[in-house]
Amino acid sequence: MTASFDAMWADLEPVGRDPRGGYRRFAWTDVDAELREWFAAEAARRGLGVAVDRAGNQWAWWGEPSAGGKGVVTGSHLDSVPGGGAFDGPLGVVSAFAAVDMLRDRGHAPSRPIGIVNFGDEEGARFGVACAGSRLLTGVLPVERALALTDADGVSLAQALGRQGRPEPAADPEALGRVGVFVELHVEQGRALADAAGAPVGVATEIWPHGRWRVTLAGEANHAGTTPLADRRDPMLDLAALVTDARTTAERHGVLATVGKVEVDPNGVNAIPSQVRAWLDCRGADPDAVAAVLADLGRFAPQQESWTPATVFDPALAARLSRLLGDAPLLPTGAGHDAGILSAAGIPTAMLFVRNPTGVSHSPAEFAERADCHAGVVALADVLAELTR
Amino acid sequence: MTASFDAMWADLEPVGRDPRGGYRRFAWTDVDAELREWFAAEAARRGLGVAVDRAGNQWAWWGEPSAGGKGVVTGSHLDSVPGGGAFDGPLGVVSAFAAVDMLRDRGHAPSRPIGIVNFGDEEGARFGVACAGSRLLTGVLPVERALALTDADGVSLAQALGRQGRPEPAADPEALGRVGVFVELHVEQGRALADAAGAPVGVATEIWPHGRWRVTLAGEANHAGTTPLADRRDPMLDLAALVTDARTTAERHGVLATVGKVEVDPNGVNAIPSQVRAWLDCRGADPDAVAAVLADLGRFAPQQESWTPATVFDPALAARLSRLLGDAPLLPTGAGHDAGILSAAGIPTAMLFVRNPTGVSHSPAEFAERADCHAGVVALADVLAELTR
Repeated sequence: MTASFDAMWADLEPVGRDPRGGYRRFAWTDVDAELREWFAAEAARRGLGVAVDRAGNQWAWWGEPSAGGKGVVTGSHLDSVPGGGAFDGPLGVVSAFAAVDMLRDRGHAPSRPIGIVNFGDEEGARFGVACAGSRLLTGVLPVERALALTDADGVSLAQALGRQGRPEPAADPEALGRVGVFVELHVEQGRALADAAGAPVGVATEIWPHGRWRVTLAGEANHAGTTPLADRRDPMLDLAALVTDARTTAERHGVLATVGKVEVDPNGVNAIPSQVRAWLDCRGADPDAVAAVLADLGRFAPQQESWTPATVFDPALAARLSRLLGDAPLLPTGAGHDAGILSAAGIPTAMLFVRNPTGVSHSPAEFAERADCHAGVVALADVLAELTR
Repeated sequence: MTASFDAMWADLEPVGRDPRGGYRRFAWTDVDAELREWFAAEAARRGLGVAVDRAGNQWAWWGEPSAGGKGVVTGSHLDSVPGGGAFDGPLGVVSAFAAVDMLRDRGHAPSRPIGIVNFGDEEGARFGVACAGSRLLTGVLPVERALALTDADGVSLAQALGRQGRPEPAADPEALGRVGVFVELHVEQGRALADAAGAPVGVATEIWPHGRWRVTLAGEANHAGTTPLADRRDPMLDLAALVTDARTTAERHGVLATVGKVEVDPNGVNAIPSQVRAWLDCRGADPDAVAAVLADLGRFAPQQESWTPATVFDPALAARLSRLLGDAPLLPTGAGHDAGILSAAGIPTAMLFVRNPTGVSHSPAEFAERADCHAGVVALADVLAELTR
């Protein structure tokens, strides 16, 4: 089992390197196609049937879900943010295959089918909508809206799918209907397990409520060399105020606020900008605290682009898995996941987190010790065995 | 004469509109080629010989500069910044043709040749180096460095020239040697003439010393939803401090400082940036005050990309032209110009400024009343007549 994990990990290691460090595995690119071929080959090597749902997600099945009833599904995603780490996504997919290997080694005969899923475009790094594959699958992302999304080069999702020879996507209630329980294993994106809990594997309780806001800061374009400071309407100064105020108010209200994306017009060295656009990401355990931050930033007139309420994972399932794993720590997370989308769609869902000593994610510094990865596989195998006794 | 100015102005009005407002006339694009064809046609219509120097600048000659000795040259440029105004550049070229028309109407017989120049790529908006045409001409921009410059799409200057069927550029001492005096007419990029001087035309005394610095702000990429505020190394906060400090210290030292260009990596809504790069433009009458600003910003480790000392235009020539124009106001400017490059190359050089009631430039709000444009043509014709008596 550890050998199969290590071999798969080594296979994925060179795929989709970002020249600036880490990985750049964007959805519906040639790199993404290579990752999907890898998934299909791993499934085939194990004699698992492979299907692609109408939303473009890949499924490998041990057992026939339509004949054997709803299945127990695990998996995650293979795409990454730009400059992303090796673990966010792939750890869950590789661990799923390795856990199936372990169950077979143990001679486990599942009482119902076990599925492994590779959700498409979880990061939303290319087209801007996170969890696009699971949102399309469950129907919460309308197809028309999805097809019109564009990447930084102006390529629409419709065009990108066409270039990869993929059909137009659609919601797929039939595929979703095969999922009886979903368990996603993921590298922890924080140091709760490393710092306090002292355990290699934890169980998620909830995903914090989170939202994105767009701020448009208007200025007056003018020449940087000839315009007196007093005559300027320089939106870069407003950006500085936004960034500073967002941090201060987030600290005051005990939530997270981030300005991670900025676009400047015309973005010339000797040009006072005519406009700066900035995006604010804000989240925390308490939605009222998030709302208070937004109220404090009201003078910047933030426009909400998305809002996702708290996702509370099935509490009985979480408690059961924690007990099964020797009282594994229970912890919340601020990051969105496909597991949150499936949970919101009414499917009993759980997440396992694997300890990350750096606490860093979405970065080459994202990490998990190999021994902890192996512990994650054992935990996942134990969970799958428990759910398919 | 006013009719010829108005007709040319109307011809240029629709060329190279920026969809976001104003003009986008980038060097070595199809729009630029259209502007160069317009220049050649206007020259041909007047029976002026047209030549393109080895640096890619266009020249129209009334009289034979090699036979008749060094010429008196006027002109400017036709390219623009993104979202630029109609006047910065074209006003000087159109006024040059109109002034020649006026001199011919007057029956003026020039004692030496009169040239009209259209300098290529003055704004540097596409490849980042301002006054690239005059810098190549005079040899201060090495050809190898120029050819390797790239635009925002990764197209090198060498490729851009090739696509336009243009040869590799070179310094051209022979073309430069034909210029005995250079007079550039330009819209004022400030409100000195409008506010205090109360005159339609002024004469430049100097170009302030000015420089560009690059600031690299290092951070640690991490997930915006999972990283505690206290654990972050968020370079966007450093950008906010840089923008704020630059403004404060520039006010204190009485110079101009601008952060107009910013690049964020990876520039994702839910990603704490790994790095932010920002460019600082700083200039003022006193180079010691500029140096003091940079010293105040020392904690950001600004890297100098360029530094241009003060360009003092030929004082005797400026005084002579001011007297000729009825004691036209003398004024400095913070903006670089091809006139500054030629002056630094040892050519007696002057600039005329035409009143700009908005004071704005590099923006659609850049403006000059038509009557002031016509006054500029008269002034330029008077200057050319004086210099070719």
